[in-house]
Amino acid sequence: MLTLRYSPASPYARKVRIAAIELGLIDKIEFVPTSVAPGQPNDEYTKITPLKKLPVLILDNGDVILDSHVIVEYLDELAGGGKLIPASGPDRWRVKSDHSLLQGMLDSMLLCRYERMVRPEGLKWQAWSDDHWNRAWAGMARFNQKTEVLSRPLDIVQIALACVLGYADFRYADCGWRKAFPNLDAVNERMLSRPSIKISVPPKA
Amino acid sequence: MLTLRYSPASPYARKVRIAAIELGLIDKIEFVPTSVAPGQPNDEYTKITPLKKLPVLILDNGDVILDSHVIVEYLDELAGGGKLIPASGPDRWRVKSDHSLLQGMLDSMLLCRYERMVRPEGLKWQAWSDDHWNRAWAGMARFNQKTEVLSRPLDIVQIALACVLGYADFRYADCGWRKAFPNLDAVNERMLSRPSIKISVPPKA
Repeated sequence: MLTLRYSPASPYARKVRIAAIELGLIDKIEFVPTSVAPGQPNDEYTKITPLKKLPVLILDNGDVILDSHVIVEYLDELAGGGKLIPASGPDRWRVKSDHSLLQGMLDSMLLCRYERMVRPEGLKWQAWSDDHWNRAWAGMARFNQKTEVLSRPLDIVQIALACVLGYADFRYADCGWRKAFPNLDAVNERMLSRPSIKISVPPKA
Repeated sequence: MLTLRYSPASPYARKVRIAAIELGLIDKIEFVPTSVAPGQPNDEYTKITPLKKLPVLILDNGDVILDSHVIVEYLDELAGGGKLIPASGPDRWRVKSDHSLLQGMLDSMLLCRYERMVRPEGLKWQAWSDDHWNRAWAGMARFNQKTEVLSRPLDIVQIALACVLGYADFRYADCGWRKAFPNLDAVNERMLSRPSIKISVPPKA
């Protein structure tokens, strides 16, 4: 049995959950909810990962796999390999680079959220949160133009994109990404017909 | 020819440079200095990567590979595979997870630096910078105990560790990691005898 330390609000954990469902591995994973927040200690979880970030995957032998991009690669291999990430060739590096880009967009969206909604009033630096929001937005604009990425069979890039867009709805409901990026809106609607995507939509904020 | 967009101060770019030297690929890479800073736009570079983070590797065909962990995997494959990252088995996932941990430690050290040294006076949140510093410090404590990791032949974990410690010297010269973590001090001294590590030590801050 594998153990995933996760939170229902974590877009990184959502990505792993969707991948596990699509790879047919969901029944092999026990999901253990975990609470982390900036500026708040969690000694039990820090012993598992000094980074105090979600998710991590814990194997039977005690090995701790992090972060989410490595977990997804591990699960893909466990399912036979080459399922959500091409096993070789130029497409492997394109998919891995797009995955990194989407991870970085999530990182920036989280930093922006911490700045605007978690940091104490009076300590906010507008240029910082604007910069990080602009990175996420510029990333969405980039993917809106990548029609070949949006139309191919499901892979880790589309899954990560669904998590970015779901997180935008969850934390930035009024940001207007649907109007700005109609191709992303279309692919998001199509993906929501998949049980893995639909069941993992974050709870209402 | 490959192009690496980098900065001499970036610990992530240093990791790629060391890996390229150790893999015998350094002559195939043109290094193009690039300036990025939080809150400051760089429109030319944002067109290459919306994340505005260093480094990225640009291939002959125009493909942009990011982030540094993917670049290192790409270079490792270019050099034949399995050189700095085990090609298969449990050690592959241990190395990739340790690499993620060290990446996260660098991320936290950078966030801590931005908070303490870049953010305008009066807007600093002590609990935030302490939290991120504690993550990096707890990570160093973790690796100080991983004597089997420190003593094996050079791999991406040791290279990334050298970059973490070099960055600590560069930006947190008084943090006292050498006294706190004698095993890390010993491995760092040993690694500094390698030309790849020595030549890439960051400039004086």
